[in-house]
Formats: sequence, C-alpha cells, structure tokens
Amino acid sequence: MIRYFDEELKELKEKILQMGTISEEMIDYATKALMEEKEELIQEVFTRENKINQLHIEIDEMALQLLALHQPTAIDLRFITAGIKINSDLERIGDLTINITDNILTLLKQPQLKPYLDLPRMNLFAKEMLRKSLDAFINKDVELARSVLLMDTEVDNLKDQIFRELLTFMLSDSQAIERALALILISRHLERIADHATNIAEDAIFIVMGKDVRHHLEKKE
Amino acid sequence: MIRYFDEELKELKEKILQMGTISEEMIDYATKALMEEKEELIQEVFTRENKINQLHIEIDEMALQLLALHQPTAIDLRFITAGIKINSDLERIGDLTINITDNILTLLKQPQLKPYLDLPRMNLFAKEMLRKSLDAFINKDVELARSVLLMDTEVDNLKDQIFRELLTFMLSDSQAIERALALILISRHLERIADHATNIAEDAIFIVMGKDVRHHLEKKE
Repeated sequence: MIRYFDEELKELKEKILQMGTISEEMIDYATKALMEEKEELIQEVFTRENKINQLHIEIDEMALQLLALHQPTAIDLRFITAGIKINSDLERIGDLTINITDNILTLLKQPQLKPYLDLPRMNLFAKEMLRKSLDAFINKDVELARSVLLMDTEVDNLKDQIFRELLTFMLSDSQAIERALALILISRHLERIADHATNIAEDAIFIVMGKDVRHHLEKKE
Repeated sequence: MIRYFDEELKELKEKILQMGTISEEMIDYATKALMEEKEELIQEVFTRENKINQLHIEIDEMALQLLALHQPTAIDLRFITAGIKINSDLERIGDLTINITDNILTLLKQPQLKPYLDLPRMNLFAKEMLRKSLDAFINKDVELARSVLLMDTEVDNLKDQIFRELLTFMLSDSQAIERALALILISRHLERIADHATNIAEDAIFIVMGKDVRHHLEKKE
C-alpha cells in the first residue's frame, strides 16, 4: 500500500510540474508574440490553455483520490492539500496569460510605443519565480521558497515604475493612451502571475515547517 | 467521534461564512469611501483585512486537522478540500479590496470625473455573487451556484462597457487620464472579485455533483 501511495504521489508531482512547464511556455509565447510582433504565436498560448484546463481537473481528482484512499497525515497531508491550492494558482496563471494576449492584440494593431525594456524584465522575474516556487514545492526546499518571497518586492517595484512611465506617456500624447493602457494592464497581469508564484512559495514553506508564513511578509498588488 | 466531526465541520462553515461577511463589509466600506468621498472609511477596510488574514490561517489549520483526525471521504472530503480553496479565494478578495482602496485614494484627490453609475452596479453584482456562492457552498445548493455562473457574464459586460466609456474620456481630455485609469483599475479588481465568487460557485457544484463543471462555461477576465 505504501509503495502504491508513493507512486501516486510521484505522478501527482509530475503532473503539477507539467502544468508549471506549460504555464511557462504560455508566458513565453505571449511575450514573444509581442516582442517579435508575431500575432500567430498567440494561437500557441490558446492551445496550451486547453491542456492546462485538462490538467487542472486531473490534478484535483488525483489529489482527492490520494486523500480518500490513503488518508495521509502530517507532511504528506500538507503536501497534497498544498498541491490542490497550487493547482488553482497554476490555472489562474493560465487565465492571466490569456488576458495578456488580449492586450497584446491591441498593441500589435499599432506601431510600437516605445522600446520594451521593463516588461520583458518583469516577465523574466515572473517566470523565474514560478519555476523556483514549483521546484521549492516539489523538493521541499524552504530556502529556495524564501528567495521567491524576496523577488516579489522587485516585481512590485517594476510594476510601479512601468505605471509611472506610461502615465507620463499618456499625459503628454493622447495618441499613446490606448497602447500605454494595454501595457499597464499587461504589467498588472504579470504582477499577479508573480503573486501566484509567491502563494506557491508560501505553501512550499508551510509544507515543510508546518506553520504559516503568510501575512508576515505582507504584499500588495 | 461522528458527532465531534459534525461539530468541527459546523465550526469550519461558520468561520468561512464569517470571512465572507467581512469580505463583503470591506467591499462596502471601499465603495462608500468613494461614493460619499469619505477617505476615513478606508481605515475600516484595513482593519477588516487583518481579521481576514487571521481567519485565513485558522481555516486552513482547522481544515487540515479535520482531514488528519477524521479522514473523511466522498462528499465530506470534497467539502473540506473545497473549503481550503474557498479560503484562498476569500483571502484574495480581501487583497483585491485593499488594491481598490489605492485607486480610491487617487480618485479622492481630485473632483469626481463623472457620476458613478456602472461601478456601483458592478460592485453590487460582485457582492451578490459572493454571498450567493458562499450560500450555495454551505447549503450544497447547486441551482444557486449555477445562477452565480450566469452572473459572471454580466460582470464581464459591465467591465467592457466601463472600459470603453473611460477610454473615450481619456482620449478627449488629458486631464481625465489619471482618474479614468484609476476607475478602470477598480473595475478590473471588482471583476476579479466576481471571478473568485465564480470559483466558489464551481466548487459548490463540484461538492454535490462530484464532477467538475469548470472549463465548460469558459470565462475570461
């Protein structure tokens, strides 16, 4: 029975990692569509969202089955319930990336407003936080998880910087308004992706420590 | 043992409902601060967020304890794991309401841009969805939960309408940009609150039906 449980748990981990990889790919394709002005890449984002939605259902089912059949306790119980929450976070990240593509479509209809510098940086941050938080979760690595919490502040700063700069653009040139607005909304979506990665990192710490680190390092969108 | 489980489950439900009530109050105070131009009401939002954060931790602990000690199966297992997810949704709703207050502070620094009509409507929708979805969850009421899913489309339409109107304001008067932007961001936060209510409603249906209704009625932010 125990061996069976371990195998199922391993499969759950693999599926969650797979969902993480697909989420990263979605973010990559969306960014690439914008940076390389290739609208056709947006289709790649949508194809992957279907897969995310399917995994979302499979992971929830698998986690419930593990709880019902094996009735784990302590760290295994915390791991599986955290998996259920992380599953929701990843699904939301997929949704957010779909929202980003809406704004990209607006941007691709007009010439580029300015060289994109902060947005790809923010994008890299969000992706790195996502990958590290999932690694921290799977490997029960508290130090790695803590490093993600620290990165969240950087993302917030970038978001504020992007907002101020684009507001200036909007105020000085009404032609810039629609594009600046789309860029602001993209930065908000990326910041929320980073927030979800932060949630995952907090869950990773909780699994190991058995105590809650949330609401100590307060964060705001 | 069974009676003990029922009592603990009842307490879990009460705490989740309490969190829902406080979330509603936060949304109310934020809206009131804007509509009645009373900045001091924002403090009421912050006071309640502390309570939300405390309940967030308590509910997670209580749910884990229920799972570990009583090892429930079938509908009870689904109810408790849904409770863990709903707890996260409610905490995020608290965060979003805090974000709304940031935008309200920007708005209160300047004269009102236009009479607020759609925003209070959207606000009422979001609150109603939240209350109904939690009632559906607690009372395992599938029909009520389904009615929430239908409301989500209305909220999306309102969000799009608000966006178009405010974009027109921005394009015709640069003095309006900062306020219009703040209003757009508030509408996005409200729409996300409605999204979380939709998640809760989907979980309510899942608890009863034991099958997943997500990703059938696709929704986008």
